[in-house]
Amino acid sequence: MSDWDARYSARTGKMRASEVRELLKLLDQPDIISFAGGIPDPALFPKDAIKEAYAAVLHENADAALQYSVSEGYKPLRQWLVQYMASLGVACTIDNIIITTGSQQALDYLGKLFISPGDTILTTWPTYLGALQAFNAYEPHYDRMIPDGGNMTPDAYRANARAAGGQVKLAYLTSDFSNPTGETIGRSDRMKLIDLAHELDIPLIEDAAYRALRYEGENAPSLLALDIEREGHIDQTRVLYSGSFSKTLTPGLRVGWICAAHPVISKLVLIKQAADLHSPTINQMVIHHVAERHFDAQVEKARKHYRQRRDHMLNALARYMPEGVTWTKPEGGMFVWMTLPDHMDGAALLARSIEQIRVAFVPGAAFHADGTGRNTIRLNFSLPDAEAIDTGMQRLGGLIKSEMDQVRAQR
Amino acid sequence: MSDWDARYSARTGKMRASEVRELLKLLDQPDIISFAGGIPDPALFPKDAIKEAYAAVLHENADAALQYSVSEGYKPLRQWLVQYMASLGVACTIDNIIITTGSQQALDYLGKLFISPGDTILTTWPTYLGALQAFNAYEPHYDRMIPDGGNMTPDAYRANARAAGGQVKLAYLTSDFSNPTGETIGRSDRMKLIDLAHELDIPLIEDAAYRALRYEGENAPSLLALDIEREGHIDQTRVLYSGSFSKTLTPGLRVGWICAAHPVISKLVLIKQAADLHSPTINQMVIHHVAERHFDAQVEKARKHYRQRRDHMLNALARYMPEGVTWTKPEGGMFVWMTLPDHMDGAALLARSIEQIRVAFVPGAAFHADGTGRNTIRLNFSLPDAEAIDTGMQRLGGLIKSEMDQVRAQR
Repeated sequence: MSDWDARYSARTGKMRASEVRELLKLLDQPDIISFAGGIPDPALFPKDAIKEAYAAVLHENADAALQYSVSEGYKPLRQWLVQYMASLGVACTIDNIIITTGSQQALDYLGKLFISPGDTILTTWPTYLGALQAFNAYEPHYDRMIPDGGNMTPDAYRANARAAGGQVKLAYLTSDFSNPTGETIGRSDRMKLIDLAHELDIPLIEDAAYRALRYEGENAPSLLALDIEREGHIDQTRVLYSGSFSKTLTPGLRVGWICAAHPVISKLVLIKQAADLHSPTINQMVIHHVAERHFDAQVEKARKHYRQRRDHMLNALARYMPEGVTWTKPEGGMFVWMTLPDHMDGAALLARSIEQIRVAFVPGAAFHADGTGRNTIRLNFSLPDAEAIDTGMQRLGGLIKSEMDQVRAQR
Repeated sequence: MSDWDARYSARTGKMRASEVRELLKLLDQPDIISFAGGIPDPALFPKDAIKEAYAAVLHENADAALQYSVSEGYKPLRQWLVQYMASLGVACTIDNIIITTGSQQALDYLGKLFISPGDTILTTWPTYLGALQAFNAYEPHYDRMIPDGGNMTPDAYRANARAAGGQVKLAYLTSDFSNPTGETIGRSDRMKLIDLAHELDIPLIEDAAYRALRYEGENAPSLLALDIEREGHIDQTRVLYSGSFSKTLTPGLRVGWICAAHPVISKLVLIKQAADLHSPTINQMVIHHVAERHFDAQVEKARKHYRQRRDHMLNALARYMPEGVTWTKPEGGMFVWMTLPDHMDGAALLARSIEQIRVAFVPGAAFHADGTGRNTIRLNFSLPDAEAIDTGMQRLGGLIKSEMDQVRAQR
């Protein structure tokens, strides 16, 4: 068996158990205060609505709920999503929508459709760790996309890709309240990114997993909506919108979707049929049942709940962090991104933090396709409560300050 | 958009909406008698038990049921499967088991782990259409494996694979009551296949989706059990056992599993984490709840129900089919495989059958990696009831006879 590992691991060689995953194990230790996860607060799960939905679906529609189904997904849920996408300015039909097993599966299938080994994917630095993991299975290179000015010319991207042995085939970004930085891309930068995708003639994945969780400010238009404005019809667009119910209703049912030009969706239906036939029928029916009745109220509740936690986090950071440390002020989502002094290493800080002050977070290098970003860390505020945030940031600020003092003393 | 199709379809070029899928659309037409599907009879779904299980899980364990979870799957379900595998003679631990979204996903992930473009997969001719679809995404070649004698030498397989531009990397078969033929591989042939896998040093996928549905005769030992006997420990084996609850409890929850050597399972956990994080938590809990209480009784009920349908099908075939037509006598599963006279084409027969007698089935060529088998068809007996079987086979026998008479008259 041992030789298999070397022979067959081309596709998993770049994969590793994510640091997030390793860190989540720490949550089993009750004295750890964790800012490492990126998961919703279970206190928000609409448990009664979900319980009622399973009972109703199994009462009214059990044969269909428990049977094989079509790969594109449950039609009433896709119809509901047509209305939802319309509320974002996206005019589409059910032929523009496929249901996926969470938005993570959307990334896997899009990698499968578009990437051959050696091709180049454009991403931001940093970007969602799970996207890098999904794409790495298809053995791509990465080049850096800088939304707020500084994008390279299409020719420069093409030349880099050729030098790496392939073509530019795909671009990926989190449009709103990004994981890991919490930042949102402004309207004019969105237009620039769409122009870039058209000039390169490549698909641009708009990962909108956190979009509904805005705590202040105005929504920027979805990139897909902007591309429809530009091209006149969704079937002419290059933006692939990836959505999820994981952050608004529940991640445990694993229901997400892709909204895009029909020619792409029809390929994805073939891919999904070959890869898992379809996402669980009953869960799609339950999500439809709950979304139809409770989506808006649920989103409002989540916004209020997480807004308080974000405010608490930003206040605690302002109070406890020493000078020389900076962080983002997210208008939504679940994360604050912190930049430490240049000399400080997020991974080394984590090791000491666990040992000395029992506080967990994710070192930032994991989110960089090129392994840079060593002096950054990601802090989650959706799961820890006000007291944990206060205690945790006080301890973390103290530790960072003492590390800075030591470095200063050595100079 | 139109140029994307040509540029990006390497992986979907070999995929097509399966004929089964096209045929299932016919089921919407109420006057069609269909033997085309391969789906369980919803009358057997343990609806009350599933309803009770969702209520119990959401009452007792809602936070975990609705939250993100680990990629390898729900631990109590994997523990239940350790006991189940022990009943098949497979000694293993939970580290030898990963939960998948149905057994279709197992095939996708195994293709992803083992196959690079140009590599060779050994399969039977014919084989499960969905396996060809799952593997085709990884652009393999196929070579023919003949279980009941006639296997080529390892060197001959190696030479063929080299000539095709790659290596032999994987073997796949349905061990029991195969889809599409209904046939089961005998013990001595199982040993030969395991020897072949060891000589070629390749993994051998044992697709056991139908294993529990035996209507007569003795169970052959699982290939994995035989390989453990041969090697002394599961972690030394080359057989990858793929199982599913779709045929015994319900397909709509999409729960399957792979049982194999730990080094393979640990790679699959990385692949699953990158591809969809995990299968829906709540469905795994519900399948565990139902399996623990009702699995044996449910299997017994299904065996009795489908045994009657198989008997009805075999009686109807004996009564209505003209001489010159042969078919398998399956000891379990859901399918009979029919061989028509050499000159007859299954696809052409289907077209006339739909038009003239309103009877549907699947032409056999789709199940052959090389497109042969034109004079074969697959008949499902799990869904049509006794009356439909009787009427359908009478009509089909009449059509086939009239086609044979016409050919004779033209000679």
